[in-house]
Amino acid sequence: MRISLAIDAGGTSSRAAVLDPSGLCLGTGRALGGNPTSSGIESAVEQISAAAAEALAAAGVRADAGSVVAITQAGQVTTAYREQLLARFAPIGFDELVIEPDLLGMFGSGTPGLRGSVLIAGTGSVAGRVEDGALVREIGGAGWLLGDDGSGFWIARRVVRAVAADLDGLGPRTALTPLLTEALGISLDEAPSEHRSNALGSLIDHVYGDRPIALARFAPLAFAATGDDVAERILAEAVEKLAELLSAVHRPGPDVPVVVGGSVLVDGLLQHSGLARERLTAASGGARLVPVADGLVGAGTLALRRAGSVVDDDVFHRIDDGVAPVRARRA
Amino acid sequence: MRISLAIDAGGTSSRAAVLDPSGLCLGTGRALGGNPTSSGIESAVEQISAAAAEALAAAGVRADAGSVVAITQAGQVTTAYREQLLARFAPIGFDELVIEPDLLGMFGSGTPGLRGSVLIAGTGSVAGRVEDGALVREIGGAGWLLGDDGSGFWIARRVVRAVAADLDGLGPRTALTPLLTEALGISLDEAPSEHRSNALGSLIDHVYGDRPIALARFAPLAFAATGDDVAERILAEAVEKLAELLSAVHRPGPDVPVVVGGSVLVDGLLQHSGLARERLTAASGGARLVPVADGLVGAGTLALRRAGSVVDDDVFHRIDDGVAPVRARRA
Repeated sequence: MRISLAIDAGGTSSRAAVLDPSGLCLGTGRALGGNPTSSGIESAVEQISAAAAEALAAAGVRADAGSVVAITQAGQVTTAYREQLLARFAPIGFDELVIEPDLLGMFGSGTPGLRGSVLIAGTGSVAGRVEDGALVREIGGAGWLLGDDGSGFWIARRVVRAVAADLDGLGPRTALTPLLTEALGISLDEAPSEHRSNALGSLIDHVYGDRPIALARFAPLAFAATGDDVAERILAEAVEKLAELLSAVHRPGPDVPVVVGGSVLVDGLLQHSGLARERLTAASGGARLVPVADGLVGAGTLALRRAGSVVDDDVFHRIDDGVAPVRARRA
Repeated sequence: MRISLAIDAGGTSSRAAVLDPSGLCLGTGRALGGNPTSSGIESAVEQISAAAAEALAAAGVRADAGSVVAITQAGQVTTAYREQLLARFAPIGFDELVIEPDLLGMFGSGTPGLRGSVLIAGTGSVAGRVEDGALVREIGGAGWLLGDDGSGFWIARRVVRAVAADLDGLGPRTALTPLLTEALGISLDEAPSEHRSNALGSLIDHVYGDRPIALARFAPLAFAATGDDVAERILAEAVEKLAELLSAVHRPGPDVPVVVGGSVLVDGLLQHSGLARERLTAASGGARLVPVADGLVGAGTLALRRAGSVVDDDVFHRIDDGVAPVRARRA
């Protein structure tokens, strides 16, 4: 039958769904990360193919003429990469291969509309503006050294620096200090030497003994230190940075939504207090915020549209309901 | 004769001077870096020995009973390291080996007094308080990820982030952008694509293709962008951070100086405008700021004192004058 194969390929997992022309999900599949920049082209192609094969097997269908595969993904899409994917999908019956950035997949997972913005904060942070269904502007996402303001790394860096300053007597006392030292198995000085904190020495050894980006795992401590002034200030500044990112990219209009994604934003900042919702709503001129878990529905709407289907609200919700199982396997 | 051998061992060079009991410099020597943490113990011992051998040969003297070697240095001083140094200096006639932190060497290069503070800003930043000739408190110096506020790395990180934000349309235009892109051989977009700046992509490739700490080499751009609002704000915040570091460590008193060192502070911030002098003077309750180039004179006063000499103003200035040649070779 004429089918659409939707694949959302991220850094840690790739998810696939087989859809019929009405958006009904016939089968889903899942494999490891499919980012050609971080995993390498061969490995990304392998994982994406594995997720697709699982979804096709579950659906129990074969692709006939007019079938489309749409991949939304992180990483750089080179000609070599695209050719290797084509070599996998053409022989099994797909006439067309669409590859779009993960930002567009995220956006399309939040709305069947063709216009709006998308703001993501996970380990990094990035925003984009969509017009006529295409990503016309991307901002942020310059990585942990050059940008990613308000991201998980950004929050975590502030957390460890605040703890170092506390241990050094240079900054205010903070509840982040016992949380971080406990997480690292560092004993706090019982009788701190006047000359220098031993705990600070241990923290230095831990932090420089790991990759810098590994710091990002400490971002949740800022949410755990409820009511702590230092932690609350870090989170409020993160919200401010994300609001700046959004207002730099968003063009307000009637019924122009802001799709929000990434664990730090969706599961963290937006749950923590009313501040994030308030600031992001203000920064977008009152736009509706639509949280999404990943870009799979967006990949589905891209595939269906390319295959000639009209994706209205009904079709969109049918895709969304259908792919829920593969998203639930996330946990 | 009974001599004192002073050695200041830093990350990039080790300098040595042979002094007679009156502080007269009989010979100097120089070799590569002698930091056992960054260069390894064997290499540090080798370089320190080479600098000492050159100074002893230039002086044309041998160490007799009562001779002392004093080393001021960066890096961790382990028992193994100390034993290897002893194994080099005991056989050539030195009865005593004193090893002290570079902060104490810097302090002693600024004053023969036994009390005051020292503030250093080079690639990193650190401050210390000296009482009765000993370093009783050290603060800052937690490295580029955890601390080093106001340092060369800190300034440079702000510089490259400001440029990334400018190129991304996320931050204000700044004169730092043409300075940095020219330094890296990156062409500025003539007709910037709406979607994403090509120059930003090139900057990302450059920055992540190098070690993070290598960013520190861009700190001078902040001083070069004279009158640029973004650059001036970065430098003013650096001054503020260093003033906080100093006020956290300093205890004001009559004739209690603040010794200042490190290229970013001495050759950069203190030359750039009156702001640094004003803020550091205020942060120390009006203390006199004494700039120093390195810790060699401090190593000399430590050695002479351990050998039983009294280091008064005359002796101090005699050492200072005598070791100038090896410092001049720095250029």
